[in-house]
Amino acid sequence: MNVLVINAGSSSLKYQLLNPDSGAVLAKGLCERIGIDGKFTYKPQVEGKEALKEVDVAMPTHSEAIQAVLYALVDAKNGVIASMKEIDAVGHRVVHGGEAFNKSVLITDEVMKAIEDCIPLAPLHNPANLTGIRACEKVMPGVPMVAVFDTAFHQTMPAKAYMYALPYEYYETDKVRRYGFHGTSHKYVAGRAAAMLGKKSEELKLISCHLGNGSSVTAVDGGKSVDTSMGFTPLAGLPMGTRSGDLDAGILEYLMAKYNMDIKEMVSILNKKSGVLGVSGVSSDFRDLENAGKEGNKRASLSVEMFNYGVKKLIGSYAAAMGGVDAIIFTAGVGENSASQRLAIASDLEFMGVKMDAEANKVRGEEAVISAPDSKVKVLLIPTNEELMIAMDTAAIVSGK
Amino acid sequence: MNVLVINAGSSSLKYQLLNPDSGAVLAKGLCERIGIDGKFTYKPQVEGKEALKEVDVAMPTHSEAIQAVLYALVDAKNGVIASMKEIDAVGHRVVHGGEAFNKSVLITDEVMKAIEDCIPLAPLHNPANLTGIRACEKVMPGVPMVAVFDTAFHQTMPAKAYMYALPYEYYETDKVRRYGFHGTSHKYVAGRAAAMLGKKSEELKLISCHLGNGSSVTAVDGGKSVDTSMGFTPLAGLPMGTRSGDLDAGILEYLMAKYNMDIKEMVSILNKKSGVLGVSGVSSDFRDLENAGKEGNKRASLSVEMFNYGVKKLIGSYAAAMGGVDAIIFTAGVGENSASQRLAIASDLEFMGVKMDAEANKVRGEEAVISAPDSKVKVLLIPTNEELMIAMDTAAIVSGK
Repeated sequence: MNVLVINAGSSSLKYQLLNPDSGAVLAKGLCERIGIDGKFTYKPQVEGKEALKEVDVAMPTHSEAIQAVLYALVDAKNGVIASMKEIDAVGHRVVHGGEAFNKSVLITDEVMKAIEDCIPLAPLHNPANLTGIRACEKVMPGVPMVAVFDTAFHQTMPAKAYMYALPYEYYETDKVRRYGFHGTSHKYVAGRAAAMLGKKSEELKLISCHLGNGSSVTAVDGGKSVDTSMGFTPLAGLPMGTRSGDLDAGILEYLMAKYNMDIKEMVSILNKKSGVLGVSGVSSDFRDLENAGKEGNKRASLSVEMFNYGVKKLIGSYAAAMGGVDAIIFTAGVGENSASQRLAIASDLEFMGVKMDAEANKVRGEEAVISAPDSKVKVLLIPTNEELMIAMDTAAIVSGK
Repeated sequence: MNVLVINAGSSSLKYQLLNPDSGAVLAKGLCERIGIDGKFTYKPQVEGKEALKEVDVAMPTHSEAIQAVLYALVDAKNGVIASMKEIDAVGHRVVHGGEAFNKSVLITDEVMKAIEDCIPLAPLHNPANLTGIRACEKVMPGVPMVAVFDTAFHQTMPAKAYMYALPYEYYETDKVRRYGFHGTSHKYVAGRAAAMLGKKSEELKLISCHLGNGSSVTAVDGGKSVDTSMGFTPLAGLPMGTRSGDLDAGILEYLMAKYNMDIKEMVSILNKKSGVLGVSGVSSDFRDLENAGKEGNKRASLSVEMFNYGVKKLIGSYAAAMGGVDAIIFTAGVGENSASQRLAIASDLEFMGVKMDAEANKVRGEEAVISAPDSKVKVLLIPTNEELMIAMDTAAIVSGK
């Protein structure tokens, strides 16, 4: 079975054609500047096929973008499939499923309506995701499509974890609660962790650290998300590349009065000019910060320390929440690539059975056990693969598994 | 030595005369409705002396209030000292010392100026505290006075704990950082914990849970605060009686737009209508919530669960921050009195060496070890005594210790 995975933004569309059984990627690429002029990238992953890099293709709407993807996939010379019939299903990434979706679903009119109902919760993302789905429906009529939500994995959280200590009507009427994001990634690495440890998901307590430009940590108990650090929006939780994470609302009142800012300006600063960028004044990229730190920039070093400290505290927090932990997982850009940050985060946790192996930790981008052989709690590096997770969910649903 | 401890609010003044060496309280009471009409309460703690309950005393300013306190203390019939000369010093509670004060200090003109400089950080509290100090200076000239700050104990936090992930100039120019509060209480119980355990403060890692209508948790490593849950303001950290605790700022943007609120209205709701009151819709008092829960009110039970869960997560978080913990302390209203909440909070933490003793935990308002004899981490109940801590600090400073 081949699944086309689509991640549609307002003016972009990422795609990947892959086989969910083998995990083999046939081709992937990107459509950009949709509605403006149109740039198209195509990278076949099959021997002897040539890539296209930033070709101009007119893309007035997402439909032309999808059409360009299909032409490239079936192209006589550089295509990877003989005809569109070899695409068995399409899996769409959808950011927000609210409380309506606790798992991936076959897309129907009713599902489309429910995704629309979640637009107030993700006003930038859900409309783009819907546009991508509609464009596919138009260009590939009859091909089954599945929606895979960033929030769905976290719908198993208990009320004590997802409720905010606000007037109750804000939950009941306005749907204000912790939703959490990066669910597809956390679900994927949690599944891989069970496989690596040779155990059933049901018998494991895991803490999954998805650390990148956007970062979240999730407590996974028995295969189910029971708490996560992102909240009502992806601004919450840890300090990130440019995001502040959770805050004392008193700070907003103080700064907004002092600088005569409205809440839009304030939250824009919290989203775009805060995090490690704001503290360091250097960059939102952890590699830049590590280099600047080595050159003696103290604010750069402080920003990385703050981030690592935040992750370490969440690990302790979620271990307490679950009454223990069997394995800690590092994934995403920083988690997969920064040995120094992994070491800083998971060090000095012997009191809870975590003992790192500094040598084994010197690895990047591949599945590995990076804790000491006698560590009670295993520490794992697991590269995330959201596209594969989307394809797996899609395949399971269309084949009725 | 006798120390008069003063806690001045904008229209109230709490007082206590005590001996910091023995801890004996000679008298205590309250002046209320200062600037309005004036109500005076006096409770001598000495055999054979009679209390005054809500006597009308004209109190146009705090000076008349202090004067009333002194008259009562030296009253021929119900006084507890022969003359004002038996008051050796006055200790004033001051809410905010900013970064200027990392310990209690003898009050001088320079200190008064520095407390004034902190008014923007505590616009309601510091002016009232200053008024109390000035009133005492007027009525008791020449008596040495000491300022004891709620924030001072936390000034030992490292930058990674006190910095917010915001643009750096908000710290540099605007002094936005985590200050923490309840410092006098955390310092007192941490000192008592060392005494109870027969160890030096320097060799202990403690987590102090001050749980009341306002709540904060502090990590105390080697006698020094290294992290605390309240932040720039006392709105931060845990959900409390009526306060939300830390939040996703995206929630503020969403609700303020939806209900056309400004930040003052929003933060007022977060301070006064949120917390366990907001979730339960019943009360901000945990005793009421426990009763309502027993009668089947699910939102009341949920609000208590959320609070307990928040404390449990902070315990895990701070254990990770310190690389372990030797003892966990419960104090203040809820911490001293609710056996059920202590049990819920400290249960299922065996993975980090905490084992509660449900029988030993059936105690209230007195110093006790409530963990099992074989618990690696001791769990302690320690009634807080901020007045005694203020008196002890005051005595130490005026006697030059």
